[in-house]
Amino acid sequence: MLHYSATDLSDTIVALSTPQGLGAIGVIRLSGNQAITLCNEVFFGKDLTQQKTHTLHFGTLRDGTAILDEVVVALFCKPHSYTTDDVVEISCHGSPYILQEVIQLFIRKGARLAKPGEFTMRAFLNGRMDLSQAEAVADLIASESESAHQIAMKQMRGGFSKQISQLRQQLIDFASLIELELDFGEEDVAFADRTQLITLIKEIRSLLQQLIHSFKLGNALKNGIATVIAGRPNAGKSTLLNALLNEDRAIVSAIAGTTRDTIEEQINLEGIPFRFIDTAGIREAGDTIEAIGIKKTFEKITQSSLVVYIFDPNEMSIKEVQTELDKLDKSDIQTLVVGNKMDLLSEAQVKEITTEGKTHFGNNFLLISATEVHNIEDLKQYLIQVTISDKVQLENPIVTNVRHFDALEQADASLSTVLQNIEADLSGELLALDIRQALHHLGEITGEVTTDDLLGNIFGKFCIGK
Amino acid sequence: MLHYSATDLSDTIVALSTPQGLGAIGVIRLSGNQAITLCNEVFFGKDLTQQKTHTLHFGTLRDGTAILDEVVVALFCKPHSYTTDDVVEISCHGSPYILQEVIQLFIRKGARLAKPGEFTMRAFLNGRMDLSQAEAVADLIASESESAHQIAMKQMRGGFSKQISQLRQQLIDFASLIELELDFGEEDVAFADRTQLITLIKEIRSLLQQLIHSFKLGNALKNGIATVIAGRPNAGKSTLLNALLNEDRAIVSAIAGTTRDTIEEQINLEGIPFRFIDTAGIREAGDTIEAIGIKKTFEKITQSSLVVYIFDPNEMSIKEVQTELDKLDKSDIQTLVVGNKMDLLSEAQVKEITTEGKTHFGNNFLLISATEVHNIEDLKQYLIQVTISDKVQLENPIVTNVRHFDALEQADASLSTVLQNIEADLSGELLALDIRQALHHLGEITGEVTTDDLLGNIFGKFCIGK
Repeated sequence: MLHYSATDLSDTIVALSTPQGLGAIGVIRLSGNQAITLCNEVFFGKDLTQQKTHTLHFGTLRDGTAILDEVVVALFCKPHSYTTDDVVEISCHGSPYILQEVIQLFIRKGARLAKPGEFTMRAFLNGRMDLSQAEAVADLIASESESAHQIAMKQMRGGFSKQISQLRQQLIDFASLIELELDFGEEDVAFADRTQLITLIKEIRSLLQQLIHSFKLGNALKNGIATVIAGRPNAGKSTLLNALLNEDRAIVSAIAGTTRDTIEEQINLEGIPFRFIDTAGIREAGDTIEAIGIKKTFEKITQSSLVVYIFDPNEMSIKEVQTELDKLDKSDIQTLVVGNKMDLLSEAQVKEITTEGKTHFGNNFLLISATEVHNIEDLKQYLIQVTISDKVQLENPIVTNVRHFDALEQADASLSTVLQNIEADLSGELLALDIRQALHHLGEITGEVTTDDLLGNIFGKFCIGK
Repeated sequence: MLHYSATDLSDTIVALSTPQGLGAIGVIRLSGNQAITLCNEVFFGKDLTQQKTHTLHFGTLRDGTAILDEVVVALFCKPHSYTTDDVVEISCHGSPYILQEVIQLFIRKGARLAKPGEFTMRAFLNGRMDLSQAEAVADLIASESESAHQIAMKQMRGGFSKQISQLRQQLIDFASLIELELDFGEEDVAFADRTQLITLIKEIRSLLQQLIHSFKLGNALKNGIATVIAGRPNAGKSTLLNALLNEDRAIVSAIAGTTRDTIEEQINLEGIPFRFIDTAGIREAGDTIEAIGIKKTFEKITQSSLVVYIFDPNEMSIKEVQTELDKLDKSDIQTLVVGNKMDLLSEAQVKEITTEGKTHFGNNFLLISATEVHNIEDLKQYLIQVTISDKVQLENPIVTNVRHFDALEQADASLSTVLQNIEADLSGELLALDIRQALHHLGEITGEVTTDDLLGNIFGKFCIGK
């Protein structure tokens, strides 16, 4: 277990910042008081200690007389760097052998191998970014869709944490005033205007609830919207997946299913990631093994955000579909009923089935042909619309991080108690207690309150070299 | 099949220069006349066209209004760049999604995706390096041991190609003089001093032969010295490999054997790569399948540079070892006979077996204990010494490239013919023909003579982005 500490700032750290493996270039990053002087000891070409910030220098790295590599050194002098310390980035040839040798050389010269995320941790501890911004750096690197990327980028550039920070400061002022009242003990003075305090708390709670509310969408956008494709065997589940793929030339990654019975594929539709879960066909369980497969399908459905139930109208009536769906017990999960193979229906049949389908399922019914790619665009738009009922939502701040979500909920609960206590005309002492509690939780988001454990949890998940 | 052409220099190329995958940083490289202006169109922060060479600039990359990433842009203005054209290197967050989006953006703006090695090809075509130096860049990136790294580095920094280029120039002068004689037709003048020509050719051939001679070592150092470990089952082959490993904390990579019967492991001993090939135990073939295994072992041995025959002196006498070795038909392959498990022998036995072993095998005999790590250092030194009989060899130019080796042999053959023809007092016309032939082959090494096919062969093997 790696140990992260807020006091761990004095030494010079080094790491490979580019991915492992063979490449044209590999970049080694140093940060700390000694970064430039250490590099200068092994760099031949010019005196790096005499150069300006934001300049590039070609030369050789040498271990004694042996030339390790021809490199380009990038200098970022404090405070104009990612960490706000002196930073040197060395572009070497992308040979794993050379990169390892260079890192070893710097370690021998006195640098320390950086822990995962330690450069970003220093950027945070040195005040260059708050904690939620630092966390967004990791989200940005991991983002695989336009929406996840957009949310992470917004959060990294300030996002909602600025707003929280501001409101938190106002709350701190109130807390101080209330605590001042306590000093006056018996005198029954009220420095803190209760009406103003109520207004402020309501304003904060309104923001918190908006953010809490955004988490469901945020989490889905970050991890992909779990969409179960259910239906009898041969209803056309795989063909539908392929049709969605071709439609969008989307990026697809196969995710190993948790069981042999389900396959997951991530497809980005207009920048929104959907995890399509192709389940074992639903049918009457003939034997125990099949029953297990169907049980798994049901489990998957209860964990999902969306169900696309696909059927072949040539084989199944709308009534039969209804009966089958009733069995699924999908309670409040949005379900789209899709009749496939419409290319095999007559025009009259299409009309009839559409009418019957709309009667049963309203707008949650659609006829398509996966093979002929009929109405696939409509299906896509349906999926996007139920996910983001209003495109504008993406413009609002969105919480994607469970840690933030928890802290927001706890802060909101404390503030709710404060409001109740004001109404009940309880003592300033009690009010101050709950306000401090709320401040603590809000401070956890921005990092105004941290512990070494929290730092370890957050930065331990980063890549090395970031 | 990618097409490479020496005339392909006018457009602006773009590629990811760091390895694929998630990382802290990914670097995208642009080179060409439009590199800086293209980047400037999507970069927000400052006007890149107004900045000095070798400077770094922080800002955002935007696709329309959408922020793709916060980046640092490195500017290298022509001719002070790797390719000698304008080069921009953009450090993005190491998200495959972002990197792909940025590259796509540049392609939409008019850049072209670079072919593998195309940056280095431009560096060559623009005269920044000769062809053998360009090839060394790929060798440098692929190098996995100190010796391979050292040879590639030397070659990249000029190496033997400078010498060849110089001697080639002198030869060109002679060829011109001889061709001048031809213009004077019947007059029987000799502008080119035959004695001087002979001296020059001898000097060139001496260098060529030295280089040709170095290829066996160079090739071995580049690809690892194939060392078969043979012996009966349980003689201690695997334990020996482990002992060598521990001794050196060497880098080991398991290479999948060509057959299930052999396992290869690369171990660097003092910077020299050895490919240890652990063969199926040698024993009397009881059935057909075993006979195939033994045949494979023999094949491996004939392909190897070294054989380490390991035996257990508690189980086998020196005479029996001799009989077994005689069967191997290893002709001129250096063989070291190693008696293992000396820790199980009495002091008297050790003395006796050592004497007998040295009598049979001279200095090619050694008693060790792989388990107790006795005499492993001696074994290691033996392996290194037979590989590089003189450490100084590594200081001399070494040819590692089959293409160079072939060209050197052909040039040498042509020059040999020239010498014969001078002695036979043949006409200048004939001399000029063979000199031109030699010049052609020498020029192939340095790239003074190239074809598009040759460029494709060489640069097609590079990484993208180099």
